[in-house]
Amino acid sequence: MRVAMLTGGGDCPGLNAVIRAAVRKGVQDHDYEFVGYRDGWYGPLHGIGHPLGIPSVRGILPRGGTVLGSSRTNPFREPDGVRRIKESLAKDHVDALIAIGGEDTLGVAARLHSEYGIPCVGVPKTIDNDLSATDYTFGFDTAVGIATEAIDRLHTTAESHMRVLVVEVMGRHAGWIALHSGLAGGANVILIPEQRFDITEVCGWVTSRFRSSYAPIVVVAEGAVPKDGDLVLKNAAARDSFGHVRLSGVGEWLAAEIERRTGKEARTTVLGHIQRGGTPSAFDRWLATRFGLHAISAVHDGDFGRMVALRGTDIVRVPLAAATARLKTVPPERYEEVKVFFG
Amino acid sequence: MRVAMLTGGGDCPGLNAVIRAAVRKGVQDHDYEFVGYRDGWYGPLHGIGHPLGIPSVRGILPRGGTVLGSSRTNPFREPDGVRRIKESLAKDHVDALIAIGGEDTLGVAARLHSEYGIPCVGVPKTIDNDLSATDYTFGFDTAVGIATEAIDRLHTTAESHMRVLVVEVMGRHAGWIALHSGLAGGANVILIPEQRFDITEVCGWVTSRFRSSYAPIVVVAEGAVPKDGDLVLKNAAARDSFGHVRLSGVGEWLAAEIERRTGKEARTTVLGHIQRGGTPSAFDRWLATRFGLHAISAVHDGDFGRMVALRGTDIVRVPLAAATARLKTVPPERYEEVKVFFG
Amino acid sequence: MRVAMLTGGGDCPGLNAVIRAAVRKGVQDHDYEFVGYRDGWYGPLHGIGHPLGIPSVRGILPRGGTVLGSSRTNPFREPDGVRRIKESLAKDHVDALIAIGGEDTLGVAARLHSEYGIPCVGVPKTIDNDLSATDYTFGFDTAVGIATEAIDRLHTTAESHMRVLVVEVMGRHAGWIALHSGLAGGANVILIPEQRFDITEVCGWVTSRFRSSYAPIVVVAEGAVPKDGDLVLKNAAARDSFGHVRLSGVGEWLAAEIERRTGKEARTTVLGHIQRGGTPSAFDRWLATRFGLHAISAVHDGDFGRMVALRGTDIVRVPLAAATARLKTVPPERYEEVKVFFG
Amino acid sequence: MRVAMLTGGGDCPGLNAVIRAAVRKGVQDHDYEFVGYRDGWYGPLHGIGHPLGIPSVRGILPRGGTVLGSSRTNPFREPDGVRRIKESLAKDHVDALIAIGGEDTLGVAARLHSEYGIPCVGVPKTIDNDLSATDYTFGFDTAVGIATEAIDRLHTTAESHMRVLVVEVMGRHAGWIALHSGLAGGANVILIPEQRFDITEVCGWVTSRFRSSYAPIVVVAEGAVPKDGDLVLKNAAARDSFGHVRLSGVGEWLAAEIERRTGKEARTTVLGHIQRGGTPSAFDRWLATRFGLHAISAVHDGDFGRMVALRGTDIVRVPLAAATARLKTVPPERYEEVKVFFG
Repeated sequence: MRVAMLTGGGDCPGLNAVIRAAVRKGVQDHDYEFVGYRDGWYGPLHGIGHPLGIPSVRGILPRGGTVLGSSRTNPFREPDGVRRIKESLAKDHVDALIAIGGEDTLGVAARLHSEYGIPCVGVPKTIDNDLSATDYTFGFDTAVGIATEAIDRLHTTAESHMRVLVVEVMGRHAGWIALHSGLAGGANVILIPEQRFDITEVCGWVTSRFRSSYAPIVVVAEGAVPKDGDLVLKNAAARDSFGHVRLSGVGEWLAAEIERRTGKEARTTVLGHIQRGGTPSAFDRWLATRFGLHAISAVHDGDFGRMVALRGTDIVRVPLAAATARLKTVPPERYEEVKVFFG
Repeated sequence: MRVAMLTGGGDCPGLNAVIRAAVRKGVQDHDYEFVGYRDGWYGPLHGIGHPLGIPSVRGILPRGGTVLGSSRTNPFREPDGVRRIKESLAKDHVDALIAIGGEDTLGVAARLHSEYGIPCVGVPKTIDNDLSATDYTFGFDTAVGIATEAIDRLHTTAESHMRVLVVEVMGRHAGWIALHSGLAGGANVILIPEQRFDITEVCGWVTSRFRSSYAPIVVVAEGAVPKDGDLVLKNAAARDSFGHVRLSGVGEWLAAEIERRTGKEARTTVLGHIQRGGTPSAFDRWLATRFGLHAISAVHDGDFGRMVALRGTDIVRVPLAAATARLKTVPPERYEEVKVFFG
Repeated sequence: MRVAMLTGGGDCPGLNAVIRAAVRKGVQDHDYEFVGYRDGWYGPLHGIGHPLGIPSVRGILPRGGTVLGSSRTNPFREPDGVRRIKESLAKDHVDALIAIGGEDTLGVAARLHSEYGIPCVGVPKTIDNDLSATDYTFGFDTAVGIATEAIDRLHTTAESHMRVLVVEVMGRHAGWIALHSGLAGGANVILIPEQRFDITEVCGWVTSRFRSSYAPIVVVAEGAVPKDGDLVLKNAAARDSFGHVRLSGVGEWLAAEIERRTGKEARTTVLGHIQRGGTPSAFDRWLATRFGLHAISAVHDGDFGRMVALRGTDIVRVPLAAATARLKTVPPERYEEVKVFFG
Repeated sequence: MRVAMLTGGGDCPGLNAVIRAAVRKGVQDHDYEFVGYRDGWYGPLHGIGHPLGIPSVRGILPRGGTVLGSSRTNPFREPDGVRRIKESLAKDHVDALIAIGGEDTLGVAARLHSEYGIPCVGVPKTIDNDLSATDYTFGFDTAVGIATEAIDRLHTTAESHMRVLVVEVMGRHAGWIALHSGLAGGANVILIPEQRFDITEVCGWVTSRFRSSYAPIVVVAEGAVPKDGDLVLKNAAARDSFGHVRLSGVGEWLAAEIERRTGKEARTTVLGHIQRGGTPSAFDRWLATRFGLHAISAVHDGDFGRMVALRGTDIVRVPLAAATARLKTVPPERYEEVKVFFG
């Protein structure tokens, strides 16, 4: 039996741990052969893949990124995409395909299975942890850990200079990284995309923090938006001549506004890519490894069109469709919970 | 309303995060006053406590250990213990008591509530993660992270010298730390207290690892026992003149046996206390903080004789008795799951 | 004998280690009393200081920032500045003043000593390591360590997406942080302020790196300037509406230019303040502690107008003037040395 | 021109950085070819080596250990050793040999050069930093960093339980790791091999620390010896049935004695191999890389019988003999310097 694997979308610590675990279990327990397709769906689309054996996954457990490379290629947007994919799978004698990725990658896998009967198993991957079908996705814990360490470091600078420090973390549509790292880092304000923030209220928290003679840390998700923010952010965007949203993103805007309104010096740190790189945390290696092992079990059971997921401490299987069902955003009550630390 | 807090048993990263969160929420949301008792049950037993306010919990979130101190004192083993405790609580006008600790500490709280009507709320704390009532306990993730980093480091030494490296981690009765850190660290053998190991089988895995010209890492929980091990370990213990079990514990014994049986050089590293010290991981700060917040909610609801616990991503309340109900050990199927990486 | 201390300029990991060491040695070996002035020269200027004892320096060794606070206040630019400083010193019965800071802070101390006979001892502090009088300054090793860890993390993202990653590190006038972190992080291009870079050459290195099918990391000091760069950077600055140079600094400009000229996707990470915050590295704690101890020896010897400095592994004393003598920039041959790793 | 390389003795973070730098510079600047001999002098002795090219050193900069393997083989103790080495070098057309190692490895290189005219260049490697010819050796900074982090962690456990924590670090003959990590970690007692310690004095420091109601950390080098210690340690050794000195080494002995004499609970942590494994610190990567580059310059200059060394911030060359000249131990005045922190 031959199993193909591919990784799609943004890179994420733990991808290699999934690949290694799947190959180790597939080869040792079931004598499977493996094909690794390059750069997500681009690989099968162009028939670019290579055999994967135990030697090729040696030592990759602690390494970030993905040895298979990644891309955002979507075969449904390519001329003749599906046919070309089916041809590659046939040419490579692929009996099952394990797709590791987020909404888009798994969305493709879901359709390939439901509409074209391709035997797919999905492994969820989103550093933003915004997938409703699973308690956690690997990469998230690593990102939160890196952001928290950065916040720890910024406290001392804030205190020494009595400055406001704004930390912009990842999270376009969901505030999980901001919520967890802000809570763990002892931030004084946490702003998430799920709830538009009132800049006046934010400045109130900042000022009250100074009153107790401590300097505030403001953690903001890149996707957070101020009330009546569309206008403001259009201006912010206008300032940017490279088209990098983060260039003058909400973090910069926030620091400038806070400075203007409170008269306190404010600085921004945009963590950016360091949140998604490097060695995975122990938790993410453990979760990714178990996802890889259970993906092979699903293949072995011929249980296709399914995705592995974490529920409590168990790995379960859910329909691939669930992966793209709905975004898991921060519930209002969870955000309320942390407001006790604001100001 | 006055709330007392105490921390008992071995120290654990996250204790201060619980204390801080409880005080912040209690004072800001409910105007509670707080008493911090020193050194677990020793404090109320001898009437040693002091007021806790927001200033006294400032900056302790990232700090390991406990600002309240800890001990293993058990009032039920002290002359007149319960009466003296009740007197202290009366003297200090305590309306509710939050006990943060493991089996023993919470066992006392459970009895004080059920037999003597003392309004107790429990917060579970065990670095070994061996509590059946909760998915995880804070401190565990930090310990696993430290052990995993140590294993990462030992790989390079093992490879460079083609040596067997035995890493003894914490876990008297449950192998969770060994299981998670061994899996995350890419260990070649993982031995846990739940299943007696066969030294011949272990040596087989070690030898097969060398055959693929890699050097093996053996992760062993301090409580792991070889088959026909009682005898062996009695001897091991006999070798130790200080009464520290770990001195010539299973790790040392294992390295010596592996060396004797395989002829390969073997070394032991006993991680010991570094696993339980230092700053908590982001995950543990998040979990401990939420436990502290929800303990206050329980107090506010007058919901005594309960313990906060983690279920999936929710904090729930369970009867205090459940804390001591039964040990959460590694289920056989979970151990089977990782055997694919052995050898 | 009473000794005053102050910390000026930007915060830097190790400041607290200097303070602690000076107080410990001063009190225990010589029975000195200590005054800690707030916020650099602002403190003595406004007579704001408080006694420092062994209890007040407890536990600060591993903490970043400075317990004395900091500022850029310059008494020579304040009306009547020097007289007010002398009054504070007299009022507080200060027999010696230890000034911990960079060019500006120590420049003031030098003048106060040479022109007004105030008994000053200096401790050099610059995270940029650009002081010719000493081999290293504390804070530098920590900054290099943080930048190197970030570069390590970015490698995996670069590889997975075959992207150019530009990392902007600190260094307005000297490229030491870029040189050391770029070398340690295995960067493929390192750009420093000391040598104007040729964007065409940079793109050549980037392209050649891709030819060997690896993705390049470009480390650039914030003060690096392209040939014919004045024009270019004026434009860059023009894009920034907050007046933060780093907002659309050389890092952003570089990524945009590389993308435009090579057609390869490029991203920028600006490390910013995380480089100067948080716990000092072991090396910096060791250096800062020894500086503190030797500053007290200088005071004890009545050897004023001097600054402590590192030469090899020895702590020596040099004239305070030397602190501000000339900037220690990266010598051409040291930059040549690392070019073997470019491309 | 063909250059051979080998690594001997205990592994040390930075070895791979030396190898990578030498190959990169040798190939790119001088078109050298490289031979990598396996396992120190064992390789040329048995003619086991393989070509090294730029691809073979890719990605090894941040990796601990050595890709060439290591051993303690000494050709002068092998029948016909020197002749066999010369034959291998001839067979492999080796024009120059770069030996990376400590006293033993470089001692062999020195004799092979002086007595047999073999063109050797040495690169010093000792994690203990006990080489008089160089300010620092790579690996030392990493070891100190790991030990310091461990001490940081142990503080919280010591405080929470008011226990004495004894940390045994590496250092058979020189106390550099104990001195630097003890200083950086804020230890209350530091014991080094250079000066026999008085157990009564140690207990005095421990007791005085408790009087100021803090718990003491005692850092002891594995080679530290009590006054009238021979006897005591013979007993200690006698307690050990595996012949591992560290099993009941000075750390365990010390904890037991302190417990017995002060009545305070004491625990030992033996850091062991984790001090020498894992990724090198930025400082060590920088130093090792520069050593590698300068070793090639020496080869290029035909300057054989020399060793590269660090002086201040410069890399210099010294006679290979100097490597083994005399042990660099901690000078009495340096030890005195830190005593202010004892107790």
